[in-house]
Amino acid sequence: MNASAQIGVTGLAVMGRNLARNFARNGYTVAVHNRTTARTTEFVEEYGSEGAFVATKNPQELVAALERPRRLLVMVRAGGPTDAVLAEFAPLLDEGDILIDGGNAHFEETRRREAELRERGLHFVGTGVSGGEEGALHGPSIMPGGSAEAYAALGPMLERIAARAPDGSPCTTHVGPDGAGHFVKMVHNGIEYADMQLISEAARLLREVGGFAPRQVAEVFRTWNSGRLESYLIEIAAQVLAHTDAATGRPFVDVVADRAEQKGTGRWTVQTALELGVPVPQIADAVFARSLSGDTPLREAAAGLPGPAGPELEGRDAERFADQVEQALYAAKVVSYAQGWSMIQAGSAAYGWSVDPGAVAAIWRAGCIIRARFLDRIRAAYAEAGPDGLPTLLADRGFASELGTAELDWRAVAATAGRRGVAAPGLTGALAYYDSVRTSRLPAALLQGLRDYFGSHTYHRTDRPGTFHTLWSGDRSEVRTD
Amino acid sequence: MNASAQIGVTGLAVMGRNLARNFARNGYTVAVHNRTTARTTEFVEEYGSEGAFVATKNPQELVAALERPRRLLVMVRAGGPTDAVLAEFAPLLDEGDILIDGGNAHFEETRRREAELRERGLHFVGTGVSGGEEGALHGPSIMPGGSAEAYAALGPMLERIAARAPDGSPCTTHVGPDGAGHFVKMVHNGIEYADMQLISEAARLLREVGGFAPRQVAEVFRTWNSGRLESYLIEIAAQVLAHTDAATGRPFVDVVADRAEQKGTGRWTVQTALELGVPVPQIADAVFARSLSGDTPLREAAAGLPGPAGPELEGRDAERFADQVEQALYAAKVVSYAQGWSMIQAGSAAYGWSVDPGAVAAIWRAGCIIRARFLDRIRAAYAEAGPDGLPTLLADRGFASELGTAELDWRAVAATAGRRGVAAPGLTGALAYYDSVRTSRLPAALLQGLRDYFGSHTYHRTDRPGTFHTLWSGDRSEVRTD
Repeated sequence: MNASAQIGVTGLAVMGRNLARNFARNGYTVAVHNRTTARTTEFVEEYGSEGAFVATKNPQELVAALERPRRLLVMVRAGGPTDAVLAEFAPLLDEGDILIDGGNAHFEETRRREAELRERGLHFVGTGVSGGEEGALHGPSIMPGGSAEAYAALGPMLERIAARAPDGSPCTTHVGPDGAGHFVKMVHNGIEYADMQLISEAARLLREVGGFAPRQVAEVFRTWNSGRLESYLIEIAAQVLAHTDAATGRPFVDVVADRAEQKGTGRWTVQTALELGVPVPQIADAVFARSLSGDTPLREAAAGLPGPAGPELEGRDAERFADQVEQALYAAKVVSYAQGWSMIQAGSAAYGWSVDPGAVAAIWRAGCIIRARFLDRIRAAYAEAGPDGLPTLLADRGFASELGTAELDWRAVAATAGRRGVAAPGLTGALAYYDSVRTSRLPAALLQGLRDYFGSHTYHRTDRPGTFHTLWSGDRSEVRTD
Repeated sequence: MNASAQIGVTGLAVMGRNLARNFARNGYTVAVHNRTTARTTEFVEEYGSEGAFVATKNPQELVAALERPRRLLVMVRAGGPTDAVLAEFAPLLDEGDILIDGGNAHFEETRRREAELRERGLHFVGTGVSGGEEGALHGPSIMPGGSAEAYAALGPMLERIAARAPDGSPCTTHVGPDGAGHFVKMVHNGIEYADMQLISEAARLLREVGGFAPRQVAEVFRTWNSGRLESYLIEIAAQVLAHTDAATGRPFVDVVADRAEQKGTGRWTVQTALELGVPVPQIADAVFARSLSGDTPLREAAAGLPGPAGPELEGRDAERFADQVEQALYAAKVVSYAQGWSMIQAGSAAYGWSVDPGAVAAIWRAGCIIRARFLDRIRAAYAEAGPDGLPTLLADRGFASELGTAELDWRAVAATAGRRGVAAPGLTGALAYYDSVRTSRLPAALLQGLRDYFGSHTYHRTDRPGTFHTLWSGDRSEVRTD
């Protein structure tokens, strides 16, 4: 077989299929392969006219079809199937060839695989791909990790197929070594969990407190989508809210079961944040809100618990409330994203990745689920501050100023949610985070005192260095322990 | 050597030392061993008069000193050291002998060890021990897992050395097979994190909003400690709050650095809850509050962010506020404990342990850090409902009634914390959980609609069974997918 293809794709389920088409539509010759050959045949029959494809029947043929250094994109299920495919192809490849995993692998797995394949002289690029089926076909946000050498050989092709930000730059960059790409993809999904929770809470508050019908909430969202909240998620939320269920004639959101499911990347984000010691309470609360929503026995048992009911707002009051909710949603969104970026910076430091936090924002401006005008602000904030100049996004002058403006409305919305019994863990939890990071004295002083009392865990003092313990069951004098 | 000892203890650091003394003071002959023999010698010199000890110089001597079935308590550091000691002793033991790990092992490790030792015909009892150094000596709460056979041989001894509940019953029980003991100990610590966070928030609110000086907060806590909040943690919080720093003459809590540390069991609790899909947002927020408190760069960067300031309350208003905070603290405590018990029930179901949730409450009534009058209420709730009759503690009639009474004050305190800018993630987050579980419609409906829109993740309907997808990018008709 003539080695004429610039890239190979093995695994022709929907994501692999659409990425292969995207490469071909951009002028690349794409060698395709699937374990079941019938699917390869069908694929070429259906999409062969879109570009230059080379159908291959087995791994040997696929490898033989590729130019060197070979670039081979693996699009199979995460976990065991990925390992099996890598084990099958690695012996067929030569030094300097590049294996690419475009699935949703855990970044620790990617680190392991990269190290193993590096030992064998192969490059391994674990890459996040966001944007779903449509994104894969028309331009996703692509987050590749791996060596700089691999990016030099692969990056230009990814830049061709990626989404384009409003300023025309491609939504991909070399995120960092080994697991960096899958790590930031994981955090992307964690942020997505938090953002979706906030949006859904805002809609619920407009409904329950503001008295807006779903179509009216959709209208409010459309207005918001022309301002600083402009984003894919707000846009599609407006569409979902405006949709009428054909079977019943009722608003679609009223016939959908209020049980949110999850596939695991949000959970991974929180588990990893706990390992890193980075506080991401918004993401955790969003993950737990989903599991709570699906816990039918819990909800049925608790359904009778008392709560307040109040009249809905009307007219000008309702409009004023909608404006307050916009402020609260925006402020809580800034907080959620700040937690995500703190986690990216902590992960980068822990694993020595030198991730550019502004570059991550730049490649999320288009193509991915959280794409938004907002992300250009984050890019700019880090560009101005430098990669280590902003320990939290909240400290950026622009965001800090907006938070200052939003603050009173945000507090009013949180208070209203509490008083009216409308659960808004995201909007209220974000406020608690904001007040926690800005305060000069946290409850933690008493807490650490308790730990010293019952467990001799020691404490630090505000007025001098050292580690101390009070002899609580003795004469209560203080001893220095370091 | 004469096999005269009923129990052996290897590892004579403070916890091992105090448990060995506790057994001896209760009339048992205790064989003691430490890798460094000098420590064994010192131990017997110092505490030999307290009871019958057999000092042994090596593992062979220790094993030879024990009656059969041999009971050997391992009190070394968790992880590698525990495995090393088990590997050293296992070959010296006979079928039916019992190895006990009284350290803070992860329950998954305990499951692995139990399975490995069972293969060799040995019993392995992973047991939680709570109460710190003092508890180990005078009566801890003991949470043993492992086989029923092992408990039959070991339990009576544990019942002798354990703390006693007010009704005289010992604070130990056979929690369940393999890792059940270490699992419930982990959840105990997670609840402890949440409880300490709530108590510290309440103190901070009394200070910042109520205008109480630390000594006055201590006085309020002492009053609370004579009511339904009576507990070890409230008692020692009052003592810590009342303590004056000798070096400065200032309140102790004002000179302690407000950075709370952690050793990891809280983190394990949240990570495990995520695996099990059980919402424990209170515990997660408490863990994150600790890591936030220690994140100096984050706090320094955010220190300038705007927030409100208000006058402190005075006189009757302050007293009224203190009463409201008591209601909020109590209600949030009920919520935190409910989350912990939901997790115990989920873990028990997932691992097939048949843990009796009421029995766990019973053995935490004394000896452990969260010991409290309150726990007898939990015991009684499960005793009344039966082990599967109460999917959440919140549904217990007694607790539900108290929550109903507390509700308005709790909402007022949450609103005040938000308006006044005093971070209270525990008190406000618990309210969001309460409102989430009791509501008939969660924001999750819109959220699942969004998931269906961008990822074809499907949804359920409220009006009929099945799994559905709307063709969002098509004609928006609905298809059934199951």
